[in-house]
Parts: sequence; structure tokens; C-alpha cells
Amino acid sequence: MEMKLPGQEGFEASSAPRNIPSGELDSNPDPGTGPSPDGPSDTESKELGVPKDPLLFIQLNELLGWPQALEWRETGRWVLFEEKLEVAAGRWSAPHVPTLALPSLQKLRSLLAEGLVLLDCPAQSLLELVEQVTRVESLSPELRGQLQALLLQRPQHYNQTTGTRLCWGSTHPRKASDNEEAPLREQCQNPLRQKLPPGAEAGTVLAGELGFLAQPLGAFVRLRNPVVLGSLTEVSLPSRFFCLLLGPRMLGKGYHEMGRAAAVLLSDPQFQWSVRRASNLHDLLAALDAFLEEVTVLPPGRWDPTARIPPPKCLPSQHKRLPSQQREIRGPAVPRLTSAEDRHRHGPHAHSPELQRTGRKVPWYPSDFLDALHLQCFSAVLYIYLATVTNAITFGGLLGDATDGAQGVLESFLGTAVAGAAFCLMAGQPLTILSSTGPVLVFERLLFSFSRDYSLDYLPFRLWVGIWVATFCLVLVATEASVLVRYFTRFTEEGFCALISLIFIYDAVGKMLNLTHTYPIQKPGSSAYGCLCQYPGPGGNESQWIRTKPKDRDDIDLGLINASLLPPPECTRQGGHPRGPGCHTVPDIAFFSLLLFLTSFFFAMALKCVKTSRFFPSVVRKGLSDFSSVLAILLGCGLDAFLGLATPKLMVPREFKPTLPGRGWLVSPFGANPWWWSVAAALPALLLSILIFMDQQITAVILNRMEYRLQKGAGFHLDLFCVAVLMLLTSALGLPWYVSATVISLAHMDSLRRESRACAPGERPNFLGIREQRLTGLVVFILTGASIFLAPVLKFIPMPVLYGIFLYMGVAALSSIQFTKRVKLLLMPAKHQPDLLLLRHVPLTRVHLFTAIQLACLGLLWIIKSTPAAIIFPLMLLGLVGVRKALERVFSPQELLWLDELMPEEERSIPEKGLEPEHSFSGSDSEDSELMYQPKAPEINISVN
Amino acid sequence: MEMKLPGQEGFEASSAPRNIPSGELDSNPDPGTGPSPDGPSDTESKELGVPKDPLLFIQLNELLGWPQALEWRETGRWVLFEEKLEVAAGRWSAPHVPTLALPSLQKLRSLLAEGLVLLDCPAQSLLELVEQVTRVESLSPELRGQLQALLLQRPQHYNQTTGTRLCWGSTHPRKASDNEEAPLREQCQNPLRQKLPPGAEAGTVLAGELGFLAQPLGAFVRLRNPVVLGSLTEVSLPSRFFCLLLGPRMLGKGYHEMGRAAAVLLSDPQFQWSVRRASNLHDLLAALDAFLEEVTVLPPGRWDPTARIPPPKCLPSQHKRLPSQQREIRGPAVPRLTSAEDRHRHGPHAHSPELQRTGRKVPWYPSDFLDALHLQCFSAVLYIYLATVTNAITFGGLLGDATDGAQGVLESFLGTAVAGAAFCLMAGQPLTILSSTGPVLVFERLLFSFSRDYSLDYLPFRLWVGIWVATFCLVLVATEASVLVRYFTRFTEEGFCALISLIFIYDAVGKMLNLTHTYPIQKPGSSAYGCLCQYPGPGGNESQWIRTKPKDRDDIDLGLINASLLPPPECTRQGGHPRGPGCHTVPDIAFFSLLLFLTSFFFAMALKCVKTSRFFPSVVRKGLSDFSSVLAILLGCGLDAFLGLATPKLMVPREFKPTLPGRGWLVSPFGANPWWWSVAAALPALLLSILIFMDQQITAVILNRMEYRLQKGAGFHLDLFCVAVLMLLTSALGLPWYVSATVISLAHMDSLRRESRACAPGERPNFLGIREQRLTGLVVFILTGASIFLAPVLKFIPMPVLYGIFLYMGVAALSSIQFTKRVKLLLMPAKHQPDLLLLRHVPLTRVHLFTAIQLACLGLLWIIKSTPAAIIFPLMLLGLVGVRKALERVFSPQELLWLDELMPEEERSIPEKGLEPEHSFSGSDSEDSELMYQPKAPEINISVN
Repeated sequence: MEMKLPGQEGFEASSAPRNIPSGELDSNPDPGTGPSPDGPSDTESKELGVPKDPLLFIQLNELLGWPQALEWRETGRWVLFEEKLEVAAGRWSAPHVPTLALPSLQKLRSLLAEGLVLLDCPAQSLLELVEQVTRVESLSPELRGQLQALLLQRPQHYNQTTGTRLCWGSTHPRKASDNEEAPLREQCQNPLRQKLPPGAEAGTVLAGELGFLAQPLGAFVRLRNPVVLGSLTEVSLPSRFFCLLLGPRMLGKGYHEMGRAAAVLLSDPQFQWSVRRASNLHDLLAALDAFLEEVTVLPPGRWDPTARIPPPKCLPSQHKRLPSQQREIRGPAVPRLTSAEDRHRHGPHAHSPELQRTGRKVPWYPSDFLDALHLQCFSAVLYIYLATVTNAITFGGLLGDATDGAQGVLESFLGTAVAGAAFCLMAGQPLTILSSTGPVLVFERLLFSFSRDYSLDYLPFRLWVGIWVATFCLVLVATEASVLVRYFTRFTEEGFCALISLIFIYDAVGKMLNLTHTYPIQKPGSSAYGCLCQYPGPGGNESQWIRTKPKDRDDIDLGLINASLLPPPECTRQGGHPRGPGCHTVPDIAFFSLLLFLTSFFFAMALKCVKTSRFFPSVVRKGLSDFSSVLAILLGCGLDAFLGLATPKLMVPREFKPTLPGRGWLVSPFGANPWWWSVAAALPALLLSILIFMDQQITAVILNRMEYRLQKGAGFHLDLFCVAVLMLLTSALGLPWYVSATVISLAHMDSLRRESRACAPGERPNFLGIREQRLTGLVVFILTGASIFLAPVLKFIPMPVLYGIFLYMGVAALSSIQFTKRVKLLLMPAKHQPDLLLLRHVPLTRVHLFTAIQLACLGLLWIIKSTPAAIIFPLMLLGLVGVRKALERVFSPQELLWLDELMPEEERSIPEKGLEPEHSFSGSDSEDSELMYQPKAPEINISVN
Repeated sequence: MEMKLPGQEGFEASSAPRNIPSGELDSNPDPGTGPSPDGPSDTESKELGVPKDPLLFIQLNELLGWPQALEWRETGRWVLFEEKLEVAAGRWSAPHVPTLALPSLQKLRSLLAEGLVLLDCPAQSLLELVEQVTRVESLSPELRGQLQALLLQRPQHYNQTTGTRLCWGSTHPRKASDNEEAPLREQCQNPLRQKLPPGAEAGTVLAGELGFLAQPLGAFVRLRNPVVLGSLTEVSLPSRFFCLLLGPRMLGKGYHEMGRAAAVLLSDPQFQWSVRRASNLHDLLAALDAFLEEVTVLPPGRWDPTARIPPPKCLPSQHKRLPSQQREIRGPAVPRLTSAEDRHRHGPHAHSPELQRTGRKVPWYPSDFLDALHLQCFSAVLYIYLATVTNAITFGGLLGDATDGAQGVLESFLGTAVAGAAFCLMAGQPLTILSSTGPVLVFERLLFSFSRDYSLDYLPFRLWVGIWVATFCLVLVATEASVLVRYFTRFTEEGFCALISLIFIYDAVGKMLNLTHTYPIQKPGSSAYGCLCQYPGPGGNESQWIRTKPKDRDDIDLGLINASLLPPPECTRQGGHPRGPGCHTVPDIAFFSLLLFLTSFFFAMALKCVKTSRFFPSVVRKGLSDFSSVLAILLGCGLDAFLGLATPKLMVPREFKPTLPGRGWLVSPFGANPWWWSVAAALPALLLSILIFMDQQITAVILNRMEYRLQKGAGFHLDLFCVAVLMLLTSALGLPWYVSATVISLAHMDSLRRESRACAPGERPNFLGIREQRLTGLVVFILTGASIFLAPVLKFIPMPVLYGIFLYMGVAALSSIQFTKRVKLLLMPAKHQPDLLLLRHVPLTRVHLFTAIQLACLGLLWIIKSTPAAIIFPLMLLGLVGVRKALERVFSPQELLWLDELMPEEERSIPEKGLEPEHSFSGSDSEDSELMYQPKAPEINISVN
């Protein structure tokens, strides 16, 4: 068989139009590209007047059973990926990347080149189409009749609606007229139809061995107006393309493979685009050749052609396949870069637009409440409420401890509720959750020691510090100092975030271990043994209590007393006194608390992983992982309630009054302090202002990252303004100070992630953005306020469970920053390291050096935080920016671009060309697409969920 | 540029020799094929006289820096897979499947077709080679000189020896004479050299843009005698192939891609074979075309060509690429099937050869000891010793409980040691570990109740049961009844194994929970509170102890006593009496035990997973996972010792005498029983014989599976004989009865796995077999015997830790059988199910039905085991075979072939053709290679490690 081969026209770029199939791009946007697939991209293409090509569903009907029992059977289908019918198992295979054999493509080309090509065929029904297709000279009238009858025979589709039951269509050959009927019921009920967007079209490939044909018969038809061709396709879609590949016996699975080749071609966006616009056979073949030129070839000795490749995490960019003129048609729209690309191309520009405009938030205000009407928000409220309450209790307890009761749990609850709710109503970025934070707590502890050392009245002094801080912050707002945020690169962010996460972890573990001091473990042989209940009565009185000590041990000899072995609470109730070293030890609590702690931590972690497991339907998986921490808390409470041990429980204040006895809600401006202390307070206030600024703005920068695709803009200045005003308020009321809390805010955002429902088989859900609204935060803080009165319910939550959830939050936050990934690299032998882009472009020693410097900075920060020098801690945080600046002398801009991002000056100092790594050597276009293989979803750098 | 295209000769099978590159196959055997890659395959090919082609190392040297600073740089290398030099990062990429662009292959073809092809070039040095290659008409003498100088320039290799430091070769151009020198030091020290087998040859591709050439220059050289070409290659190997691809400026990365194409071609085993035998240009091009015909093509729209595909788990079979005449050259050797193929092709034949020959074990006897000289055996001994001792203690305790002390821990230790050691010395399959097993324990418990009900003297009665069982077993041996084992299909095996594993898990958890009864948790408000130490002295005596009870509670009012709060042990030592309800409660033990239990379980599981993690060098990972259970036990002991709580510890008998007081070691034949009981004992003995036969033979079948590649053969009859003889011995001494224990035996084998060290980059280690020897088992049992005297050391091991390890063994055993995988499928939505071959060929409902039937059988067995009807339990086990037989009416042989394996008659009833599923529809050759993607290593069906 002599056939023409592809590329005989030469393999330089073909002259056929290689234009972008914009429809494909828009209806199936590449994950990670463009701001939001369901938002601007549609409008964008419409504005530009580019018509949208419909999505194509392609089906391969194979002719089987020659010569005894001819029948058409659907054996494969394509939308984005291939699904093969497993005949014996009666199921569709998982979607996979289609692989072809080169000869089948070449054979297809030959067959089409010699066959019938009808572009803009006017057929209105299958009958008309079949008549047109069989109008071939080589066929005798008799054969033509036979062929027509065969083509009108109803194909067998594996019907998915009936679930697992094997249900094929009727196998009886049918009269031609039957095919004119309306689509069958199962065609309309096919669940696949719901996955396809409206306007989708079908393409059908018919292939098979037909012995009575003397020579192969190839036909390719593009219908002028797509029409539903009876029961030809599995789904009742209007057909646009029709491809017929029949012929005499061929060795191997020739027709099957050729049919697959035709289907794969049709499913290629570029080929589809070209063939929709092709005007003759030449265009069709040119499109096929262009396809051949771009295929990837795997060598036979190293790859098994029957292996099924799962769909890649993200599709290759079709943008690359555009010739330049076509790109211009798409107009001034920014090329859709992945966020990773964007980040590396533009460095800190990524967030600078936010910093330059004044956030006009008013237009969004109504939608800030309407957008919250979704079940997911309910889960988010529950989760964040629990985190906030836990935080309020923990920090309340710590503050009470640090300030000798000047503030306490009640103040913590009240302050969190008031400040949080006010912030959620007013702020520019209402996704932010205000909370007491570790750094501020450290500073407050120091401030209290200072005022005690100088015998100051703490709350009035603190009021003045607050007034000064608010003033400084307002000055920063007025001077638009938030622009300095551009110097907070990933290095600074990661250092800060790692510190906060470590504080979370340290506190969780520390508090847990503290419980073992409160509830000591009774070791055998310890003297703290025994307890009895002594009654005031005959035979025993106080003086007789300790009579003698035995010679060799220091235990208590009771002498003659009237006592019983009642448990201490019972004893007291009966009028006795519990006596003995063992009266205060409660057995089993320490280990049980540890068990609860570990259980809630691991359970939350495990539930989080359920989302990506294979088990359960996706709704169940999503539910389990969305509510992971809530479920973990419930499990912990259940376990605790089941065993009924006296574990330490959540303590919620019962009375609404300041913790410090004898003070009113308003702090007096001077108290017992000399007036000039109100001026001197400006000094510590300066340090605190730096801390507040860093803490607030780094969190804001992280929350407003490009990757989260926030639509409603940020409000760096407005938020700082709010924080300053609330600072004033809380200082005046003697409540704790609040700034944006990184970990909880990210948890909040993460619990509000919107993802597309996967459309075509094999397509992965896209990250669409965050449900940006004010309601979840507001409800959380209202609930927090109400919790002051929810004591009867909340008191059942054991503290170890909450510590476990804290640990989980810290670990989750720490584990998702790039810094952690690099720390892990330190432990991996080079050959086992994952194929990170970073490692392709920066020598390993340089990566390790960068990581080591970050580790050293973190260690230094930790040490300073823990020593008396902690008061300069805010300055040290600012020092991170300096360290980063100094790194410019150690690392080349190229390296910093991969390891971090560039600072404003640095960026300007490099020619734009230089930012594309190794342009001269390996070519930049391959780097572009390598970037596509970065994690598809926006990398949420600190993700709690 | 007009070039000729591949396949212009037509794409029907080319006439060039498409023979198997047997060298490739032998030096890099496909994992999963052939009995043992380092064994028979080599000898086989030598016997057949097929010359072995050496392995080829291919290197791409690229010419960079035109026009300013020309230099050769190695940018890629290939053995099996491609490694790319990451220039900026200064490291080799991970090995990956090479992907090519089709045009680069076509360009290469054109260039070679028009270029210089020297086959059997006699050049002896680089200088001679360069002179021959540059003898092209189109070059002027001046250009030729320039080109020669350039080709002699020393290339830059990225040197791996210096670790992470970027160390390039000298960049100075060198004189031609310099290249004649001996290979450089770094060439010889290259660590890659150790990974290549002796006799390996090199191929070099030189490619790049050379502006002064007017037209492209292509040359392909095969050297007649391979010779080391100076510092041309990174490793000092004799070069066989040399390919030069230079030319004027081309768009894109033309020469780089063409060079890669040439290198990938050379690395293809089939192409390599052809080109080694090619005699002219036509042969070369035919080989290239043949390669093109077999490539796999990925469509550009669905696959990013720059994505790196990790090496597949196993390479595709080169056998498939053989034309039939070439296959015959390889002679009568059985085609190398994967074990999965083998299993499916041959069904139960897999083990039948063992059953047909009389195991002659004598020739292997010396090697049974010599083969044990390996560090791995040390780890195996430790692991199995601990498992055996734990087993002995647990079953000893259970037996003592079941037989009212007629047997105990000491008997268990002694019996295990004696029977195990004897078996290891005599048996046909010394990898088997004898142990008390769950089913036998259940039976013994029933036997004891029976003899108590009839007031029989237990041990003499038991002696007679043992005598009868031994007799029956010997009859079974004499009649070669072990052949019946062929009816034990996977269904029966899995049912039995799952039952045993569940017994392990149930016992572990049950014993752990029992501890919480022994050491109860003290709940608040419970009356069991308090304990004091009462001295006999003034003020208190027994009668005064309980004086009155308080009205409302039932606690103890002490009245007037002389007491102290000493802990109970101290109290007793000082002459007092501990009194009170709380004296026997030891606090904290229950929860701490639970913690120890969970810690050791999860730690062992986690350490096991370290083997496949990315962290640590492979030696460390292997060590950690080999010793996982030992380390978990040590961790548990450490934790326990650190806290010093009185957890229950391992109790090892201190005195060497029978547990039952007053009996000697030998059991009297009749005792107090009437003589006719010795005859009646035959009835229970019949049931027990069935049980022993099933238990022993199923384990033997599993251990002797094809997948384990045992070299020394099994000994079904010999083993049963040994068990029978040992039964007689243990019955006479009043020791427990022993049969092969599935879980521990498999753990034993798994800890003795031999794996090849990965050779070429990207190649995975192959499973080579098991270290078959008698020594590990022998040492284990000697140690077990010695443990009777090791009490001072072993007493530090807490029991909860051992229970944790038990749980680990049970879970590991359960989780690796196919049955478990199918149970998991029940929970997965169809679209998330893994791409199992099973699911491609059997409808999901049928799979689920099969699983449900297995689950029902298992449930039934469990219920029977737990009820008084347990005495018929052995019959029910045998019933599994019947159920399996009945399944033939429910499932088609096709389905049973995939779900199970066929029984002897069934197999005969089907034409051999029918065993190849859906031969008529999708063609069997693709099925073959799909089978290749089964797990590469022999699936150890029950794997504990």
C-alpha cells in the first residue's frame, strides 16, 4: 500500500493557520492561568469579539464482528482526555492522556488524502449524511446499499446511567428510517451531558474492518450546521464532525488505531481550530502535519505504549502554540501567565498594584454580605470560631499570667469580639481575623515587668502607650508608609511565618506538658501516695495528725484519727478534711490528656488527607476535610465524655466584669502615675509600633497575594487605620491589643476556597478564588462575644483537645511554606530530591546556604524572643529585611529570583532580559512550559486547612 | 531546507533485521521476567551461543558559544534513561524517560542520509577518527583544519566526584597531541563507572551550531574496535559509536534536539542491535525507520513536551519487539513471563511442579548454612526471635489459661525451641517457622473442656490424640495427599490468611484492652478510692476495722486505727497491711500502656515506610526499615524505662520444671483414663488432622509461591512428615502442638529478601529471591530456648509494646493480600479506583460479588470459631474449598482466572485459547504488555515487613 507521508511539504512551520483555538481556552481554561476562569476570561473574549469555538465531544464507533455479526460499538471517547471502554469489565477506563502509534497517524493521513473530504456538508440528518458519504466512485451500487444500511445501524453504547449493570443498546439492525427519530432516552439521560458546557458539539469517528470493500474507504465530513444524528453518539449533541475509516482486512488493530488517531486529532485544540476553518483538503492535511510536528515522541525501548498516563496536573499552555500574529488578535489582554511565572517575571510587582491605589471598598459592600450565602461559610464559621475562641482562651490565660491579672480571659473574649467585629465591618480586607498574637504578647509581658519595676500603675501607662502607638500608626497611614511593604519579600514573610508557626507548636506542646505538672504521674515508690478523709471527731485532732515519722522514710504516720477513705470532694461535702500527700494527685489525667491531645492532632491531620484519598464520594471527602478540626474536637469531647475523667476543661468566664477587681471598664488616663510618664510612654510605643506594623502588614501582604485571586482588592492603609483606632479603644477599656493573625486568617481564607467542579473527564478542579465577604468573620466574632454566655456548653471541651488543634494549625502552617520544603531538602540525598524548578536553576549548595541563613535568622529570633533582650524583638524582625538586603551581596539576582523574589531597586538594576534564566543556553520557551508544572493551584503559602 | 522523510519506503514492516538485542536483555533484564537476573539468564544466553552485546553509555557533547567562545560541553547522558545537565544548578537531573520532538528525528534522518556513514571504521585514536570524519568534499582544507582543531578540543564534563562543587574540565583549547594522552583521573574516578557492567562501551554524539559551515555536516561512525578516545567521554570507556551533527545557524534548538534524538536512538536496545550489525547506510536508515514505527506519540494539546516522565516501574518487554524467527534463535527457553502473566496463564500449575517431584534437599544442605553469612540475617534473627518469643509467651499464656495450667509459658518456650529447631534442621522448607497457631489453640481449648466434662486425665488423653494425628498425617504423607493442595486456590489461601491475620489483630487489641481491666482507670466519684497502711498496734484491730458505714455512701469508715499512708509494697515491708479499696489500683498504667501500644505500632509502621521515602541515604533507610520492629520495641522499652512506671512486663519462667505441679516431663500413656479412651481419641484426632493438614499446607503453598523465586525447592511431604513426628514428641512431653505459622514465616522470608543494587541511573532494584538457609531459623529457636535463662534482660520489655508489634504484624499481613485491596474497592467510587488489571477485565459488580462472598465466608468462620460449634471449625476450613468449587457455577472461568486462579478440572475444561481474555476483541498482544505494569516485584501476598 503506497501512501503519502506527513511532512512531505517540508517540516518548516506550515503555512496553514496555526491560530489559537480560543474557545477551547475559554471553556477549559488552563488551571493557574488568568484571573478567574468563570469571570473575566469569558467577558474578555466576548469584548474582543473573538467567537468562541464550542467544546467537542468525540466518540469512536468501531465496526466489530466481521464477517459473521457486524455491529457498531462505541469503544472510546474523548473530551480532554481519552476514555477507553473496558469491554470485559463493562466500564469506562479512567481518563488518560491518549497515546498513539506513529504509523497509525501516517496511515490516517494517507487515507484522508485519497479519500472524501466534505467541508461544510449541508446534510440535515444521518440519512442524508450517509448518502453523501457513500457517493464514492469505487463503490458498486450494490455495495453502496449494503454500506448505507450498515452505517445506519444503531451503534451500541455502554450506558452509564444504569450504573454498574451492563446495558447495551439494542443489537438488532434497524431500518434506515428509524434513525430519523428523536434522540433516545438514554442519550438524553447520559450523565456525561451535564459535564459538558452548553453549546458543545460532537464528532464521531467510525472505523473498522469491512471485508467486502476492495480498498480502504476514508471520509472526513464537517457539517455546515451541526445536527443531532439520531442515536449515533452516546450523548444527544449536535454533530459537527464525522469521520469514516473502513477497509479490507489489515494486519493488527489497524482500523482501531487509525480511528483512535482521528479522534485524538479532533480532540487536539489546535487541530480542531484549524479544521473548523479549513476550506479544502490541503488545509486539513496541513493541520495534520502541524499536529505531527508538535507531537512528543517516546522511544519504544523505554516506554510501554500501552501504559496509561494519568492526566497531567495542568494542561500545557496553548498560548505557546500561537503564532505571533494570532496572539495580537487576542488584543491587549495580558498573556495568561501562571502565578509562578508571574511571580518570577514581575517579582514584587505582584502586590504592588494594591499598594498604589486607594482601595475603594464601598461598591463591594453589599456583595460582601450576599456572597456569604453558601454552606461552605457555615463550616468556615464553625472552624474559625473554634480557633478564635481557643486563641482567646489561650492568650487570655497567658495575658492574665503575664500581667498579674490586669487582663484575663474575660477581657480577651470581650476584646476579641469587639475588635474583631468592628474590623470585619470596617476593614479593607475583611477576610483578616484579628487576634492577640505571639509577638504582641511577648511585648506586653515585657511592658508589664517594666512598669512593675518602676512601680507604675500599669493600665494607665498602657493606655498612653496605646495612644502613642495609635498616633504613630496614623502617621504611617497618612504618609502611605505601607508602600514599604514591598521590601517584605518571601524571605521576610517566611521568617515571620515560621516564627509564628513555631510559637503555635511550642505553645501547644508546652501547655500539654504543663498538664503533666498539674496532674503528675504517680511513679511506684514515690512518697506522694495516699489520701484519706479526716473527720473532726473523737480520737483525732490537728495536733495528733503528725505524730512520728517512721525511721527510714518520710511518709506520714497518721497516729490515731477518725478518718475514712472518701474521695476528696465527697469528703469535703461530708464535713471532713482530705489529708495526705496524695489528695491533690488525680490519677490517669496526664496520660489521658496526652492521648486526647495526640488523638485530636492526628485525627485532624488524617481527616485533612481524606480529601485527596480514593475513598468515598467527593462530597463526603470534601465534607470530612472541611470539617476536620471540628470533627477532631467532637471526637476528643466524645472520648472524654465516654471515659468521664476529670480532664481540665475549657473555662469560660461566668460573670461579666473586669478580671482585675475594683476597676471599672474605662481606664483612668493617669491613675497614680506622674504626668510625664504619659510622654515617656512614647518610647516603648515606638518599638511596639514597629512590631504592629510588621505583624499587620506581613499578614496583609500574605493574604493579598496574587495566588489567592482576590477580586475585591486589599486595603493596606485602611486596615492599619482600623488597627490604630481599635488600639485606642482597647487601651482605653483595658482590653488586649489586636493585630491581624496570620495563621487563623489563612485558615479562614482556606476554608473559603472556591473550586470549580471538574468538567470534562480527567480535568482537575480549578481554584477559582476565595469567597470574599464580611459575614463569616462577623458571625465568628459575634459568636465569640456570645461565648461569654455559652459556658454551659463550652465547658465540656477538654483543653488537651484544643491544644491538639493548635498543634495541628501550627504544623499545617509550617509545612506549607517553601522554606520547610527547602529544610527537607537538607535531609535528602541529591538523587532523591523532587524535580523542583528551583533545583534545576540554582546549585544545591546555594539553596542550602540560603536555607541555612534563614534557619540561623529564625534561631536568632527565637533566642531573642526568649531572653530579656526581647524588647528589641520588633527591631530584629525589621532586621530580617536588612539581612535580605545584605543577601544581595552573597547571591546573584538570578538565584534570588528563584529562591526569593527581587526587591524594588534590585529589580530595576537588572535588564528585563536577565530575568529569564539562561536565555542563551536552553532557550526560554521550554522554561515557560516547565513553569506550567508548578503546583496548579495557587500555592497557599501558609495553609491551615 | 528540503529533506527526506522517514518511512518513504512505506510503513509496512521494514525488511531490516528486527532482532532481539539479547545483550541488552541479559545485562539489564526486565524486572519481573525470568527466574533470576543474576542467575540462569546469563547462563541461558551463553548456552544458546547468542553473543552478548555490551551495554552502551551515550553522551551528548554540545558545541556552545558560537561565535565568540566555542566550547564543547556535555549536556546529556543516557544509559537506560536520560539525564540532563541542569547547567545553572550544576547538577544532573533525575533520570527520566527521554521525550523527543518528531521533527528532530526527521531532521536527523535527513542529515544522516546525506552525510558520512562509516561502519567498521579502523581508527585507533581520536586524532585518526577526527581525520576520517572530516574527509568530506564540501570542506575546504582551511575549514577542515579549523574543524579538526575544534573536534580535538577537550570537552567540559560536569564532574560528579567533587560532589556539589561545580568543577568543570579545563576550558582552554588544547593541542591535538594532548588528546592522545591516557584518560584523565576524573574520568576514571567517575562514580558512574562502577554502575556500569564490565565491558560497557561508549557512544558520543557531538552536536551544535558552527557558523562557518555552509551546509549541515552529519557523520555516523561505528568503530571496528572500540577504543578510549582521550577525554571525549565523561567515563573512560572504549567508544564504539561516534555521531557528528554540525551546521549553520538553525531556528530554535535544532542541533541540541537532533543530538538528543541521535543519543536516544543509540540508547534504544533494538536500534543498537541493528546498528551494531548494519553494513551500509540503508541498514542504518532502516533501523531508524523501524524505531520510528514503534515510537509512542503524545498529542501536543494534552501533554507538555518538557514534562519529565519518571522511569516506569518496569521496562517494556523487548521480547514483543522480536520477529518470530529471532525468538526461535533463543531456543527452547520458556518465554520470560512476568509472574502475574505466569499465574494467569498457568493457574495452579505455578506450584504444581513442587508437588510432583520428591524434594531432594540433601545437595543444598551445606549451602543452607553458608548462604546465611550476611548481615541481613542478623536483622532477620533479631526480628523473628522477638516475634517468636512474643508468640510463645502469648500462646503460652493463652494455653495455660485454656488448659488450667496443664501447659504454660515454660512448656511453650521449651516446645517452640525444640520443635522449631528440629524442624529447621530436618524440614524441606527451612524458611518455615513453627509456632502455636490460633486454630490449633482453639481446638486445644475445646479438647480440654471435653476431657474435663468427661473427667478425663487431660495429658494422657491428649497424648493419644497426638499419636492418632501423627498416624493420620503419616498416612497422608504416604499417600502423597499433599497433591490435594492444588485445590487450595487463592480464594482458600486468602480466606485462611485473613482469618489468621484477624486473630492476630483481635488478640493484640483484646489483650491490650484486658490490661485496662487489670489496671482500671479511676473515675472521679468511684468508690474504689484510697488505701492506707494499717499497723497491728494500739487503737486498731481487725474487729474495729469496719465500724460503721456512713448513711449515704458505701465507703469504708476507718474508725480508730494506727495507720500510715505508705504505698502498699513499702507497707508490707514494714510489717503493715495495705487496706482500702484503692490498694490494688495502680494509677496511670492503663493509659500509659495504651500509649506504649500505639507508639510501638505506629512507630513500626512509620519506620517501615521510611524505605520508600525520599529522606536519608538508602543504607540508612534500609537499615531503619529492616529493623523497624526491633527499633519500635527498643523505643517502647526506652519510654517505659524513662517514666519508670510499673507496666506489666514480659514474664519469663525462672525455673526449669513443668508448669503443672507434680508431673514429670514424660506423660504417662494412660494415667487415670480407661484404656478405650486411647481408641476413642481417634475421633477428635481426625478433626485435628484436617486442621493440621490445612494449616500446614496452606502456609507451605504460600511460602513456596512462584513469586518468591525460591531456588532450593519445597518439601510438602517432608514437612508434613516432620510435623507429624514432632507432634508425637510434643504430645509425649506434654508440650504444645506446632504447625507452620503463616504470618511469622512470611515475616521471616520477607526479612531475607535479596534485591539487586540499582545499576543504571533510573533503574529500579530487582527482587532477586530469598536468602534460603537453615541458620536464621535455627538461631532463632536456640535463642528462644536460651530465653528461659534470659529472664533478667527480657523482663524489661513491657507487654503493651509486644502487643503493639503483634498488631503491626497482623495489620501488615492483612493489608497486603489482594482480598484487602478488593475490600477497599467497595469503598471507592468507580472513577477513583486504581487502574487494576482486574478491573479492566471483570465487571465491577462481579468483583464486588466475589469480595462479598469472601467476606461472608470469613464472617462465618469467625462466628464458628467463637461459638461452641468451634469443634467443627477444621471442617469449615475445608469447606472453603467447597465454596470455591461452587463458585464455578456463579462465575465464568474468565472471571475466576482474574479474581482467583483455576482449579485443576476447571483448567482442563477450558480450551487454552480461552484463557487469554478477549482474544477476539482487543487483541492479546496489548494485553501482554499491560501485564507488565503489574507490580514489578513478586507480590508477596502476605508481607509482614
